[in-house]
Amino acid sequence: MVKKTLVAIIMGSDTDLPQMKEAAHILDEFGVGYELRIISAHRTPDMLEEYSSKLDQTDIEVIIAGAGGAAHLPGVIAAHTNLPVIGVPMGTKSLAGLDSLLSIVQMPAGIPVATMAIGKAGASNAAIFALEILARKYPEIGKKLKEYRKELAQKVKQRDEQLKELGYKVYLEKKEK
Amino acid sequence: MVKKTLVAIIMGSDTDLPQMKEAAHILDEFGVGYELRIISAHRTPDMLEEYSSKLDQTDIEVIIAGAGGAAHLPGVIAAHTNLPVIGVPMGTKSLAGLDSLLSIVQMPAGIPVATMAIGKAGASNAAIFALEILARKYPEIGKKLKEYRKELAQKVKQRDEQLKELGYKVYLEKKEK
Amino acid sequence: MVKKTLVAIIMGSDTDLPQMKEAAHILDEFGVGYELRIISAHRTPDMLEEYSSKLDQTDIEVIIAGAGGAAHLPGVIAAHTNLPVIGVPMGTKSLAGLDSLLSIVQMPAGIPVATMAIGKAGASNAAIFALEILARKYPEIGKKLKEYRKELAQKVKQRDEQLKELGYKVYLEKKEK
Amino acid sequence: MVKKTLVAIIMGSDTDLPQMKEAAHILDEFGVGYELRIISAHRTPDMLEEYSSKLDQTDIEVIIAGAGGAAHLPGVIAAHTNLPVIGVPMGTKSLAGLDSLLSIVQMPAGIPVATMAIGKAGASNAAIFALEILARKYPEIGKKLKEYRKELAQKVKQRDEQLKELGYKVYLEKKEK
Amino acid sequence: MVKKTLVAIIMGSDTDLPQMKEAAHILDEFGVGYELRIISAHRTPDMLEEYSSKLDQTDIEVIIAGAGGAAHLPGVIAAHTNLPVIGVPMGTKSLAGLDSLLSIVQMPAGIPVATMAIGKAGASNAAIFALEILARKYPEIGKKLKEYRKELAQKVKQRDEQLKELGYKVYLEKKEK
Amino acid sequence: MVKKTLVAIIMGSDTDLPQMKEAAHILDEFGVGYELRIISAHRTPDMLEEYSSKLDQTDIEVIIAGAGGAAHLPGVIAAHTNLPVIGVPMGTKSLAGLDSLLSIVQMPAGIPVATMAIGKAGASNAAIFALEILARKYPEIGKKLKEYRKELAQKVKQRDEQLKELGYKVYLEKKEK
Amino acid sequence: MVKKTLVAIIMGSDTDLPQMKEAAHILDEFGVGYELRIISAHRTPDMLEEYSSKLDQTDIEVIIAGAGGAAHLPGVIAAHTNLPVIGVPMGTKSLAGLDSLLSIVQMPAGIPVATMAIGKAGASNAAIFALEILARKYPEIGKKLKEYRKELAQKVKQRDEQLKELGYKVYLEKKEK
Amino acid sequence: MVKKTLVAIIMGSDTDLPQMKEAAHILDEFGVGYELRIISAHRTPDMLEEYSSKLDQTDIEVIIAGAGGAAHLPGVIAAHTNLPVIGVPMGTKSLAGLDSLLSIVQMPAGIPVATMAIGKAGASNAAIFALEILARKYPEIGKKLKEYRKELAQKVKQRDEQLKELGYKVYLEKKEK
Repeated sequence: MVKKTLVAIIMGSDTDLPQMKEAAHILDEFGVGYELRIISAHRTPDMLEEYSSKLDQTDIEVIIAGAGGAAHLPGVIAAHTNLPVIGVPMGTKSLAGLDSLLSIVQMPAGIPVATMAIGKAGASNAAIFALEILARKYPEIGKKLKEYRKELAQKVKQRDEQLKELGYKVYLEKKEK
Repeated sequence: MVKKTLVAIIMGSDTDLPQMKEAAHILDEFGVGYELRIISAHRTPDMLEEYSSKLDQTDIEVIIAGAGGAAHLPGVIAAHTNLPVIGVPMGTKSLAGLDSLLSIVQMPAGIPVATMAIGKAGASNAAIFALEILARKYPEIGKKLKEYRKELAQKVKQRDEQLKELGYKVYLEKKEK
Repeated sequence: MVKKTLVAIIMGSDTDLPQMKEAAHILDEFGVGYELRIISAHRTPDMLEEYSSKLDQTDIEVIIAGAGGAAHLPGVIAAHTNLPVIGVPMGTKSLAGLDSLLSIVQMPAGIPVATMAIGKAGASNAAIFALEILARKYPEIGKKLKEYRKELAQKVKQRDEQLKELGYKVYLEKKEK
Repeated sequence: MVKKTLVAIIMGSDTDLPQMKEAAHILDEFGVGYELRIISAHRTPDMLEEYSSKLDQTDIEVIIAGAGGAAHLPGVIAAHTNLPVIGVPMGTKSLAGLDSLLSIVQMPAGIPVATMAIGKAGASNAAIFALEILARKYPEIGKKLKEYRKELAQKVKQRDEQLKELGYKVYLEKKEK
Repeated sequence: MVKKTLVAIIMGSDTDLPQMKEAAHILDEFGVGYELRIISAHRTPDMLEEYSSKLDQTDIEVIIAGAGGAAHLPGVIAAHTNLPVIGVPMGTKSLAGLDSLLSIVQMPAGIPVATMAIGKAGASNAAIFALEILARKYPEIGKKLKEYRKELAQKVKQRDEQLKELGYKVYLEKKEK
Repeated sequence: MVKKTLVAIIMGSDTDLPQMKEAAHILDEFGVGYELRIISAHRTPDMLEEYSSKLDQTDIEVIIAGAGGAAHLPGVIAAHTNLPVIGVPMGTKSLAGLDSLLSIVQMPAGIPVATMAIGKAGASNAAIFALEILARKYPEIGKKLKEYRKELAQKVKQRDEQLKELGYKVYLEKKEK
Repeated sequence: MVKKTLVAIIMGSDTDLPQMKEAAHILDEFGVGYELRIISAHRTPDMLEEYSSKLDQTDIEVIIAGAGGAAHLPGVIAAHTNLPVIGVPMGTKSLAGLDSLLSIVQMPAGIPVATMAIGKAGASNAAIFALEILARKYPEIGKKLKEYRKELAQKVKQRDEQLKELGYKVYLEKKEK
Repeated sequence: MVKKTLVAIIMGSDTDLPQMKEAAHILDEFGVGYELRIISAHRTPDMLEEYSSKLDQTDIEVIIAGAGGAAHLPGVIAAHTNLPVIGVPMGTKSLAGLDSLLSIVQMPAGIPVATMAIGKAGASNAAIFALEILARKYPEIGKKLKEYRKELAQKVKQRDEQLKELGYKVYLEKKEK
């Protein structure tokens, strides 16, 4: 759809990829150009600062940043750019992502990070939200978003029909297969 | 700056106004047009649905929605529009806003709400984030955002200088006055 | 027992069905008519509003709504009807259902949702509570509820006897088989 | 409206009264008969058991029980009766009512307690929910509930109008007076 | 050691047995008589009240009660007797036992429940604590407790020696076998 | 009643005294001898170890230990003695006593601390529980406990009567005076 | 004692100063040189990076960093230097410092931040811990630390004596004055 | 590198070894001497006190202590020595390590414990932090730390390159193998 690289998806470690790939998947579906990077706020701070400071000189218009634990990545990027930064709290082993969530969402006045749900749902919503932002400027993305919503609704309606038809016992049996 | 009403600030109750006014304050400072509304997801659901569904036909490009407790307002608006919805969890008496935060941020895949910090800092950041979105399309807002950041940095530096000069005891005495 | 469809069991997604089926199971046992629906507050908001607003014109007297995460489903239904709405917080992967619980229970004054325990126990209790409400009007349900309680008590007493008889080691071995 | 004592409002201690009085206030407004009792699950267990077991022989159709901390009152009543029991978690000093909430809502399968929000909002919603239950049998209560909802909506709309008219600064000044 | 039934171990459901059996195991080891019962505060309230009220007429001197979720069992027993009641919060699926812990420990002034750790460690400590109480009156139990502590310390010291000898890699390999 | 010093009440800091004095108050009321000490697990570890190790050589039969934050006091005492140790988690400024509660209650298998509610209610219950332990050996304490319970119940009943008589509005007005 | 500036105390905002001044106070007491700075990770990121990267070229050997909410300051400094970084979570209005604590302590493997208690106690302990580090190299600091501990112990003992002498009622009265 | 035993790694139980071994592993890598001990604050208090009090007479300069639940080990050691004590909260079954974290980090003013992240990451960071402390005195450790950081950064950069090259689908497939 828009071939330029409009979105950057950044994560601090490749252990976040199984969750963050959902964002890439949505952008693939919408045909919007993105780059997918592993840059750590703690292990490669210089690389992150250089990268964040030069975002203005690229085509990138929205940043999606996923991080877990003391999840500083989205906040550090937001400190270096006025581009909208969307943060995705990774589900973590010890505190189930509550640590990631609070580390990302509780930003001080002046430097916002738009925080999504913990884990895969959050990663996929980060992409949708990026598209909602881009749709302000690229109307074709807006059109595609409307269709996407319709499909979401359609799937719910199909399942509702199927459940009515089959009853819950048969429905669950079929689903488990 | 941009006289059109580009932003809607919605809250569920006027008890949220002392926190949500921070968003209005920022938009006033930037000279960006907005409307400030009290519409309850629970007490005036029809009004909210009508309002949310017709947002496409207005100049509004970003919605800021603040709510507390079982904070459904941002999510219900997001269900009706593809415009970006920014949610602000209100600080609450009983659970300090943790309830508001989780009710807003944990949206299911497909329907994102961009969640800010709890309370006043979140309300003011919601406005900044709205401006970051608008700046994609209105470059003059982008310029103003850069200046705003510089001022933020300037204030920190001034305080740092002052602290060095006065020492912490005198600094705190002066501040308390 | 009462063949009319007195209860609606609604869930936002078919991923909730393995938990919510417990409510259906109880109503099946009691022979009380119900309908089981998948309607999403976020993905099919219009369908939900239409459904909720027309409940008055049906035989339905109690609604059971299960939802997870930013669990808006029960609250949105409660905003559209004066019928009693019982909310069931789904156990979730990231925050173990604490998010669902707070999103459902912390409703503002004026629009109550009767909240049950997280997960399967809550789903089955939602059905029992619906029956307790219906029993006000349908005395035969009240009678059945009394028997049901007696059976519950009976099972506890049998296990107590068995434990006394077998000792805990044999009891646990038998149970594990 | 209905002069018979249809509702029992029970609390474990008179320290709960400033929160629980909201329930009484709503029932007064609706003209529905109720009794207001202080009975402690822990300090007067025999009194509670006697009271709970004989509820069937009275006109009472719904029980509202408020308790704080290890809030056993609603659950113990529910263990003795098939009448619908609505639990209100009291806001507490140490853990802000999270203890009360979990002690009330996490009931085991078979014995439901319909849990409301923490504190005053929950107490007032307990009364509304009791009325929603009673409305199944007493249509005049149902009518009054519809009017009550309209008034709630009306108040929101008036405040929305006023805010539009006055602007947030004047609105807040007036409110603070 | 003391053949009389000095301790009662009560649980609300046989699903608690795999955790609560640790208490029985300790008392077996010490040779102190106990009875192991399944009595539910919610499903068999009358049985529980009768049982609790008659404890004075038995040889039982300490009660150990384990419960999960809205864990009312220890508190309800404590309401009926002046015998020391020790509560064990069961680990639960949804909230990991935090619900059980708060429901048991946050008792109001006047009616204490001595609360142990969540799960198996708590169950075994409940038995040790019961023995510490009994040791006030039965000095032979006190002697055995001292030996028990020595054995605990001995095991730690042996492991410490072994770790020094083997190094952590070999130690872990041996342990895993 | 029993003039010997049967109970030790220990706290880590005199900032805990306004909460811990409730325990002393109860023992005064019952006429049971106690000593009240400030000994810190962290600031006076040697003093604590000496004190704890010599408890066996005194008349003391139960220890009540109150502590806040990383509340190690009760656990360290329990590590040095087989006497029953009752822990009282102090309400704290930052985390409302949840830190104190978890630091005290989550003891490992082998070394129990009997944990009470957070704050004043917990301190007063620690004394009651100490009396319940002592009552095993000193029947006159047991008798007094029964009377104490009766008085607690009596007070609840009086308030219940008064509320019935006065109505909640007058009751609350009178109470506030 | 050591006149060189060995410690840097950094905070993100002057609103943290009333808590962080405790660290300065301790270093003043010990006569160890320090600098006290306001540098924000979010508002002055370049300044922070420059400052952090050049620490190696100064006399500074330990950094104390205090921050609240999404508290990135300590972690960002730690990413730029191998000097030991001690983090102090500020008590916050909304979540009482739990957000600050988790944002600071949950650092990923490779980049540690030594985390202290929330608020004033943490700030003062950060200074003590810095002194414990410095004492490895500056034995005179080690000597002073031993005296400091003795004084801490002495104060506890004096209060213990006083409490014994006065009784808790008089002690509390005197303290309140 | 430094053959003397400069670091003590202590844990309360060998069940902590699978997490704590990460600290040993890092010190092995750096060639810094350490001893690895199992000493329990609760089961072997005398051993712990003796050990802690004599640390001054050894070569040990930093202590790493890991503990879970009511995790008193680091605090008790810190009470006996002025050497820097680093605490590692063990991940626990019931409360996921939140209990361990709060028990370790919330130390009172005067006696600091430098707290690391929960679990393995924390254990490995405890070793890194110990090395950062030792580097103040042993410059060769400081040099090695710089190299270590470079390697960390290098690994991130390699993964970033690889992800760019392979795309996320192939990258994840390769990783899973």
